[in-house]
Amino acid sequence: MPDKTYKKIEIVGVSDESIEKAIENAHTKASQSIHNLRWFEVQEIRGNFVELDKPLYQVTLKVGFRLDEN
Amino acid sequence: MPDKTYKKIEIVGVSDESIEKAIENAHTKASQSIHNLRWFEVQEIRGNFVELDKPLYQVTLKVGFRLDEN
Amino acid sequence: MPDKTYKKIEIVGVSDESIEKAIENAHTKASQSIHNLRWFEVQEIRGNFVELDKPLYQVTLKVGFRLDEN
Amino acid sequence: MPDKTYKKIEIVGVSDESIEKAIENAHTKASQSIHNLRWFEVQEIRGNFVELDKPLYQVTLKVGFRLDEN
Amino acid sequence: MPDKTYKKIEIVGVSDESIEKAIENAHTKASQSIHNLRWFEVQEIRGNFVELDKPLYQVTLKVGFRLDEN
Amino acid sequence: MPDKTYKKIEIVGVSDESIEKAIENAHTKASQSIHNLRWFEVQEIRGNFVELDKPLYQVTLKVGFRLDEN
Amino acid sequence: MPDKTYKKIEIVGVSDESIEKAIENAHTKASQSIHNLRWFEVQEIRGNFVELDKPLYQVTLKVGFRLDEN
Amino acid sequence: MPDKTYKKIEIVGVSDESIEKAIENAHTKASQSIHNLRWFEVQEIRGNFVELDKPLYQVTLKVGFRLDEN
Amino acid sequence: MPDKTYKKIEIVGVSDESIEKAIENAHTKASQSIHNLRWFEVQEIRGNFVELDKPLYQVTLKVGFRLDEN
Amino acid sequence: MPDKTYKKIEIVGVSDESIEKAIENAHTKASQSIHNLRWFEVQEIRGNFVELDKPLYQVTLKVGFRLDEN
Amino acid sequence: MPDKTYKKIEIVGVSDESIEKAIENAHTKASQSIHNLRWFEVQEIRGNFVELDKPLYQVTLKVGFRLDEN
Amino acid sequence: MPDKTYKKIEIVGVSDESIEKAIENAHTKASQSIHNLRWFEVQEIRGNFVELDKPLYQVTLKVGFRLDEN
Repeated sequence: MPDKTYKKIEIVGVSDESIEKAIENAHTKASQSIHNLRWFEVQEIRGNFVELDKPLYQVTLKVGFRLDEN
Repeated sequence: MPDKTYKKIEIVGVSDESIEKAIENAHTKASQSIHNLRWFEVQEIRGNFVELDKPLYQVTLKVGFRLDEN
Repeated sequence: MPDKTYKKIEIVGVSDESIEKAIENAHTKASQSIHNLRWFEVQEIRGNFVELDKPLYQVTLKVGFRLDEN
Repeated sequence: MPDKTYKKIEIVGVSDESIEKAIENAHTKASQSIHNLRWFEVQEIRGNFVELDKPLYQVTLKVGFRLDEN
Repeated sequence: MPDKTYKKIEIVGVSDESIEKAIENAHTKASQSIHNLRWFEVQEIRGNFVELDKPLYQVTLKVGFRLDEN
Repeated sequence: MPDKTYKKIEIVGVSDESIEKAIENAHTKASQSIHNLRWFEVQEIRGNFVELDKPLYQVTLKVGFRLDEN
Repeated sequence: MPDKTYKKIEIVGVSDESIEKAIENAHTKASQSIHNLRWFEVQEIRGNFVELDKPLYQVTLKVGFRLDEN
Repeated sequence: MPDKTYKKIEIVGVSDESIEKAIENAHTKASQSIHNLRWFEVQEIRGNFVELDKPLYQVTLKVGFRLDEN
Repeated sequence: MPDKTYKKIEIVGVSDESIEKAIENAHTKASQSIHNLRWFEVQEIRGNFVELDKPLYQVTLKVGFRLDEN
Repeated sequence: MPDKTYKKIEIVGVSDESIEKAIENAHTKASQSIHNLRWFEVQEIRGNFVELDKPLYQVTLKVGFRLDEN
Repeated sequence: MPDKTYKKIEIVGVSDESIEKAIENAHTKASQSIHNLRWFEVQEIRGNFVELDKPLYQVTLKVGFRLDEN
Repeated sequence: MPDKTYKKIEIVGVSDESIEKAIENAHTKASQSIHNLRWFEVQEIRGNFVELDKPLYQVTLKVGFRLDEN
């Protein structure tokens, strides 16, 4: 069966620098337990003004990877 | 890197009492395997009239928690 | 506590035959690690025209199963 | 032909007590003319503050039942 | 039980004059079989350019009325 | 008044063969009580893995027909 | 800082004449307390059949204006 | 001009008891500065598990009232 | 191959008169380069209050036509 | 500049056989004027019961391709 | 009553630099009249190409704050 | 006829630097064939982790321009 199957999980990356940095942080963290992350889909961009002087970005991503690639 | 990363999973709590009880049941069950559940977002409220004399509530939640908080 | 709790995960099944075959492939793969898959909800139907002469279907499903049924 | 067919109709239940009571009221009323109501899906929760001292809940449900089950 | 129950049905009104006229046509037609129509919610405004020299408006409405008001 | 009025109802067709067969089953059943079904709009594709060895497709359709075509 | 900031508020205009008249009524009323209304976005078109012989249109608008333009 | 104009604002009510109590709390608070609140529309039900032993409900409502009713 | 193929494009019609006039203006303009426009679907109704004393309607339509009908 | 740019257009494929065949028909037709179609996203599945004894499937796709790949 | 109530308002921040700068501009402006801004939710990212050589970002935010925190 | 008509097309800009750079790339490319691009609306932010060490941003925009401005 040559057909592949993928799974998507939902991760929230956080950064006080930028939306892109929040996405990279989510990627870095998720990569520690999942190999072969393939793609992401931004679901939500939000944040708060509480802890820092400027916005703290919280970016929710769906992250896709191939199941059992081995 | 002080930035945190969170994960969201999707759980369906069930109760024949109330929507709130369904949410609490989902929380209780999810807490058995995940520590530090932080927040929830109700995705869907539905149910059936089949098994009981009154509605059986099925409440789909996204539940968020911090990854690797240790 | 007789109330049940379910979890939903998101899987992408792939097939160059049909949408139904992509759903079955996702089911077959997910069944290898999760018992008692109960239901699915189609989230997205997309695909590409790159690798094959005809569409390669990529069908994203939410798949639901009961937690700790034992 | 063993395949079943279902119909969904949209009902608005009302209660000044709770969201659950509004759902039950919709169920009770709909059961007077339709047998074998199977499931419901909450579409909208709204209400007004006009007639009573506290919220009057208006809960829109889709209610599903089997066609011609006889 | 003083609580009321409402039903919503979906009607498509048609007019080559205006969106409002299409809504009124839907109202007029639905009133022939249902008394006490209370409110409407526009779901979709579309139409075609085929039969007439100008747009033929097709307006989909949800129309709400009280069940068994007698 | 030459303007026509249409009604849409929501039907769930079921099949263990294919999505198309579920749509046809819904059509066949609805045609028993409604003449002149004109069009359909797929609202939801879901199903379960419980009763059969392969997916049981449950396809929710809005089905449109002309009111009082006589 | 040459960058401008805008605010959006949500207003429901009402008319028994037309959707356009409901939008104009919302505009007229909002203009009494807010200068420099710039744009609007229709959010919802609904209404009722209760008080008048024909539809009473209730059109929800988001209305945008510049903050502190002075 | 007999036509009325309404405004909607967005309020988040909070309660550790129930969704209904969160709605009532939002109502009570909003009533302190706005007279003649007429209706509400639930936009979002979410909450957290942080401060208390059970869910803290955060219910976002749109609340409608008539402008300048005097 | 008797099966037809259609294309949809997105057009924004503008009018200071009415929503219907904006739709007709979009139709007139699109007809200059595309023959056989078949149907439209209203995507968005918005506008501004800047250039004129009353609303300038901007109506976004999807417009469908048959490909290569010749 | 190594970065690529893509365009998406919206096509409606039609078939009285199956949803997959409608997608393939859209692909075949679009390929006559656009080279290098890369991917598709199903936007809508609808159809009618008018012209044939069984459903005529109308599947709206967004189809993506690379701009100026030469 | 220890329960808090929050309000959300909708602000459009503008910047020709970046999406993040538009969010910060909205924050800065809103902070001039509202203390204790807590969180934001990005609703829409759009902009124009008219006034400047590069995109002018217009980012619509919902901004939340606590009512009567005193 | 002083009323203007606009068209919107959908473009996917790509960049391994930032979301803003992906938008600018889409703008630059689209400007090669279309004059007078007026505004954009971000539809989707996604990307992949395959080709590069960090995210490759794929930003889908609707881009609006005036038809026949000459």
